[in-house]
Amino acid sequence: MSAAQLDAVLAHVDSNLDASLERLYHLLRIKSISTDPAFAAECQRAADWIVTELNGIGFDASARPTPGHPVVVAHGPEQDGTHVLFYAHYDVQPVDPLNLWHTDPFEPELKTDSNGRKIIVARGASDDKGQMMTFIEACRAWKAATGSLPVRISLMLEGEEESGGKNLPPFMQANRDELGAADIALVCDTDMWDRQTPSVTTMLRGLVGEEIEISCANKDLHSGMFGNAARNPNQVLADIIASLRTPDGSVTLPGFYDDVAEISPELKAQWQGLGFDEAKFLGEAGLSVPAGEQDRSVLEMIWARPTCEINGIIGGYTGDGFKTVIPAKASAKISFRLVSRMDPVKIRAAFRKHVQDRIPADCSVKFTEHGGSPAITVPSDGTHLRQALEGLSGEWGKQAVITGSGGSIPVAGDFKRILDLDTLLIGFAHVDDQIHSPNEKYDLDSYHRGIRSWVRVLAAFAAQV
Amino acid sequence: MSAAQLDAVLAHVDSNLDASLERLYHLLRIKSISTDPAFAAECQRAADWIVTELNGIGFDASARPTPGHPVVVAHGPEQDGTHVLFYAHYDVQPVDPLNLWHTDPFEPELKTDSNGRKIIVARGASDDKGQMMTFIEACRAWKAATGSLPVRISLMLEGEEESGGKNLPPFMQANRDELGAADIALVCDTDMWDRQTPSVTTMLRGLVGEEIEISCANKDLHSGMFGNAARNPNQVLADIIASLRTPDGSVTLPGFYDDVAEISPELKAQWQGLGFDEAKFLGEAGLSVPAGEQDRSVLEMIWARPTCEINGIIGGYTGDGFKTVIPAKASAKISFRLVSRMDPVKIRAAFRKHVQDRIPADCSVKFTEHGGSPAITVPSDGTHLRQALEGLSGEWGKQAVITGSGGSIPVAGDFKRILDLDTLLIGFAHVDDQIHSPNEKYDLDSYHRGIRSWVRVLAAFAAQV
Repeated sequence: MSAAQLDAVLAHVDSNLDASLERLYHLLRIKSISTDPAFAAECQRAADWIVTELNGIGFDASARPTPGHPVVVAHGPEQDGTHVLFYAHYDVQPVDPLNLWHTDPFEPELKTDSNGRKIIVARGASDDKGQMMTFIEACRAWKAATGSLPVRISLMLEGEEESGGKNLPPFMQANRDELGAADIALVCDTDMWDRQTPSVTTMLRGLVGEEIEISCANKDLHSGMFGNAARNPNQVLADIIASLRTPDGSVTLPGFYDDVAEISPELKAQWQGLGFDEAKFLGEAGLSVPAGEQDRSVLEMIWARPTCEINGIIGGYTGDGFKTVIPAKASAKISFRLVSRMDPVKIRAAFRKHVQDRIPADCSVKFTEHGGSPAITVPSDGTHLRQALEGLSGEWGKQAVITGSGGSIPVAGDFKRILDLDTLLIGFAHVDDQIHSPNEKYDLDSYHRGIRSWVRVLAAFAAQV
Repeated sequence: MSAAQLDAVLAHVDSNLDASLERLYHLLRIKSISTDPAFAAECQRAADWIVTELNGIGFDASARPTPGHPVVVAHGPEQDGTHVLFYAHYDVQPVDPLNLWHTDPFEPELKTDSNGRKIIVARGASDDKGQMMTFIEACRAWKAATGSLPVRISLMLEGEEESGGKNLPPFMQANRDELGAADIALVCDTDMWDRQTPSVTTMLRGLVGEEIEISCANKDLHSGMFGNAARNPNQVLADIIASLRTPDGSVTLPGFYDDVAEISPELKAQWQGLGFDEAKFLGEAGLSVPAGEQDRSVLEMIWARPTCEINGIIGGYTGDGFKTVIPAKASAKISFRLVSRMDPVKIRAAFRKHVQDRIPADCSVKFTEHGGSPAITVPSDGTHLRQALEGLSGEWGKQAVITGSGGSIPVAGDFKRILDLDTLLIGFAHVDDQIHSPNEKYDLDSYHRGIRSWVRVLAAFAAQV
């Protein structure tokens, strides 16, 4: 491929941005909240729309059924050279609390933020519809400007990333030959390092999600009549949660740190060179004091150290006013983020034993599993990584960096485990995108230059090596 | 007064039971649901009907306006000796879920239960219209059989007990001279000890209600991106709740037990003599092991020891599925039950200091007050108590007992605080009356012998002391 071809594709991206935006808006209007069964038809609608779009630009695409929401699979024309498998998800988080949104979460609007930046505001604008569409629009531009795609491209687009994603691994297993034919997986669900610096994420934390429900009495009791005599599951739950972390921020489960490796001096040095501003990072969330292990930097805390977080708790009367009740049940959603070689099965077992050991007489606990995946680490000296960094650096005029991520993208682990593929995580989101929160947004610049970035990364993959 | 007079009054009760029942039915048909503004006119109608009935038997009664529903105040003819002030409430709880009622909640029916007992089924049959009418019908019988009442009697009948009752204390304050002229307050809103044993409740726990809201970050955060670095308010809340009680069941607030008196050896012995079945009490709630201070009996735990109960907790994502969020806020509704001389103001302050001392950097707490009242203890050697026990024992052919109650009846505290009156709590309800629930009932026996009991208690008050 020639430099002129690349320029033509990039020019096509620029001159067709409005149409690219309209297509993103169309997808954002579809209420594909995967965790709520009431929105199942919307998830199907999102998958079907994407299939139509991909078929329209030369892919062989279909929405494949699963026991949950469909997986969109698409293959571009066969050709020699690198074969990439692109992953993103078309489902979104719920929108509550709705009253904190300034506009309808499913009616995207282009606004100007307080810094004068154009932003696209909607649920999923960043996570992950906006990110997904950067890649699809890059493919569209290649096809429109040159008549073909620069490398062989397959896509696997999931509809259950925000709701546990438990149907994807069996789907990948069942379609291992088809999907595993690729050479490298690309995932677009991560941030840039900062607004000037693109990055490839090569370390991701794993995740163990658990829900516990503590039951004591066989019915709600009057706290006057029974208070002191009857075990209160709210208290039991709080005692258990309090027992999970020490005041210095470490997690108390026996063996929790056994398989946690320290990061290499080289990587530590590179991270230090990133100029990460801890005060700014915390300050944007209204915080100033890191809450984790006190002898670690914030980057270490979130990229290289495991954690235990209480994502939800509920028990008893939680409406307006007051009700003197001792509830029959109380429950919590709890997640562990894993690093290095920590084993999700072992951590889940240690957690359940820890809880079970603390259930007092007359009480019982029910465990519900909400996903589990190990951490992943991509070798930092591979060809595909080098090509991706080259493509990104070309677009942004600045050396792209290698970073970690505190989040968990279980599919990256599944690519390795099931398909034996390494994963490069490349995304254009920003930390202030309010993902999972009210007023989620994606910078117009993320969208526009994200598309251009993929145009260049695909060109880099097409180069002879 | 002669024994013959008393016998004549009791005979009148027996021979006019059907008419007494019809009057109760009339009141039960009035839908005086105080919490629902749609039933305000029904509350007024209930008050007006009671006024008419009381005026018909020689009282000077009126329905006095308040900012909410009226308070019925009535005074019998002046006479020497004891002057009693009787309290009950004419309002009732809502009836939902209506589909669980076997008959119309506002069309009382006399049924036979599975034990062969006659029961009056209707909303308010027990709580509190049935109980209220036992006293009014006792007064009617005295008037009808002897031409006069045995002692000076005043009544104060409330219409907002089931909806917060916030207008009653100012009403009592505004009419302090008129209402405080009595010597003793009588409240008919409690249970018998068992079907054979009448009781006077002389100890009630007080209540301090508090709501705390812990705030950390200025928005909900992604637990992958921020987990370890950002303080999690669910964890902070759990740590605080866990710090409130020790594993042995006692409350940790400094000074919490300073004003808790041990019950007298005599009272302890009397309680032991009640034959309270701990296993049965707990068993009906599906429990078997008392959760409070391990060196105390269950009766002590619920009647004579203070407690701290977590009535509600909520924070983060609590819907179906899972959401990896670190919420911005978490909150709890917490109540303390007080005994003896514990000061609600002091306990609230100790709680707030305890919480405030445990709020980590970057977090804040907002406190909301939900009521506060001290415990009530009626001296167990008073003349009025002795007379009441004598009257009750005479009716039931068994020594009436002195009991406590773990619940809080704020009006008893108001009688003491505002009118400087001790309160004797005497009622004929049973634990299976389904108050606040569908198919509420009052035993016909509770009604009939409740009327007879008040006839005798009033006679006992009239005796020279």
